Amino acid sequence: MKNLNITNRTKVNRLPKRAAYDTETIYNILDETFICQVGFKIDGQVYIIPTAFGRKDDHIFIHGSKNSRMLNSIKKGEDVCISVTLADGLVLARSAFHHSINYRSVIIFSIGKENIEPDKKTEALKIILEHIIPGRWNDIRKPNQKELNATSVFSFKIDEASAKIRSGSIIDDKEDLDLNVWAGVLPLEVVPKEPVKDEGLNKSILLPEYIINYKRKKGKNVD
Amino acid sequence: MKNLNITNRTKVNRLPKRAAYDTETIYNILDETFICQVGFKIDGQVYIIPTAFGRKDDHIFIHGSKNSRMLNSIKKGEDVCISVTLADGLVLARSAFHHSINYRSVIIFSIGKENIEPDKKTEALKIILEHIIPGRWNDIRKPNQKELNATSVFSFKIDEASAKIRSGSIIDDKEDLDLNVWAGVLPLEVVPKEPVKDEGLNKSILLPEYIINYKRKKGKNVD
Repeated sequence: MKNLNITNRTKVNRLPKRAAYDTETIYNILDETFICQVGFKIDGQVYIIPTAFGRKDDHIFIHGSKNSRMLNSIKKGEDVCISVTLADGLVLARSAFHHSINYRSVIIFSIGKENIEPDKKTEALKIILEHIIPGRWNDIRKPNQKELNATSVFSFKIDEASAKIRSGSIIDDKEDLDLNVWAGVLPLEVVPKEPVKDEGLNKSILLPEYIINYKRKKGKNVD
Repeated sequence: MKNLNITNRTKVNRLPKRAAYDTETIYNILDETFICQVGFKIDGQVYIIPTAFGRKDDHIFIHGSKNSRMLNSIKKGEDVCISVTLADGLVLARSAFHHSINYRSVIIFSIGKENIEPDKKTEALKIILEHIIPGRWNDIRKPNQKELNATSVFSFKIDEASAKIRSGSIIDDKEDLDLNVWAGVLPLEVVPKEPVKDEGLNKSILLPEYIINYKRKKGKNVD
């Protein structure tokens, strides 16, 4: 675990006690999901594009089709902003004002580096897929040269980042405590439902363990 | 239902068949979640902040503490970019290349309008809370003047927006169909877990119906 330097961009100004700058907290949030939001500029206009990502060590990796607006903008070498958010629960206080959401979020400022060399590209695609579905890579057909050519891969170093977390119960004003209203937290979780197999799937092929036991919340898993 | 004008900013360039510009599709995606990502600029640098929102008719509403970086930037009157993403499932193909994610996303470009008048502020806060927990507003203590003073509320017209959707099963290359690998879709869903009541809650107060039956997926609910 490492504490990242706090910069003007990553410093949490609102409710600073909710902030964290250590890599353990940041990586755990990143590892619990696989969708990030990439913020970038084209001609001064801000765009946000959601995309899948993978993390390994102190880098995150994204991929996309050549000539996508987002990747062409990242190529210019400007700092992008990457946001990841987990909604953990609804905080139902007795007053409207104290309603809140339990969440964990990460924001990263970083410059994308394109991975051009085929082996590095394949390695990055493996990191992304294994981040989304651990155990999957070994089972499947790997990318061929034509597929690699059609794909752009970028990595971002996680060295300017912060996390913000709201957890726990409600905080109500004293004078509201006797109100006749239910108060507490409704936790929310992303869960897998029944897998839907491909229509053409050979009946002898069983559902793999990594799908049967699929879950996002893995606890401490910092490399 | 209305079809929004397609602009250079909202036009989906990559995989245009996944795009939708009608308000029914856009509103349904917005209504299934309550966290949006707001992209804005400070001194040319892109920032993304996740925040709760509510929708009513052709507007979305956000709120926050006075003097937050985000709200001060929105106040300047520049177009912000608002992104909402639902991850519906993992698409597990037989090749790495055809792996995908079933998702529904919306992107909105809009200029924020501050709601300053107390009644309008209260109305916007009601819209946000009822969007997150329908049925809650009537039960709770409403915001008082001091609380309203501490809160800024902004609304955004949804007239420049697009949706992008990937759904359904896998698409594999013909030559991969006989590979000995499980293929199909693993659906994901956000579900509520057991409510955790406030420690000080009077035992006579029962869990309300709107918490017992809480779910995000509501189907067609366009106003």
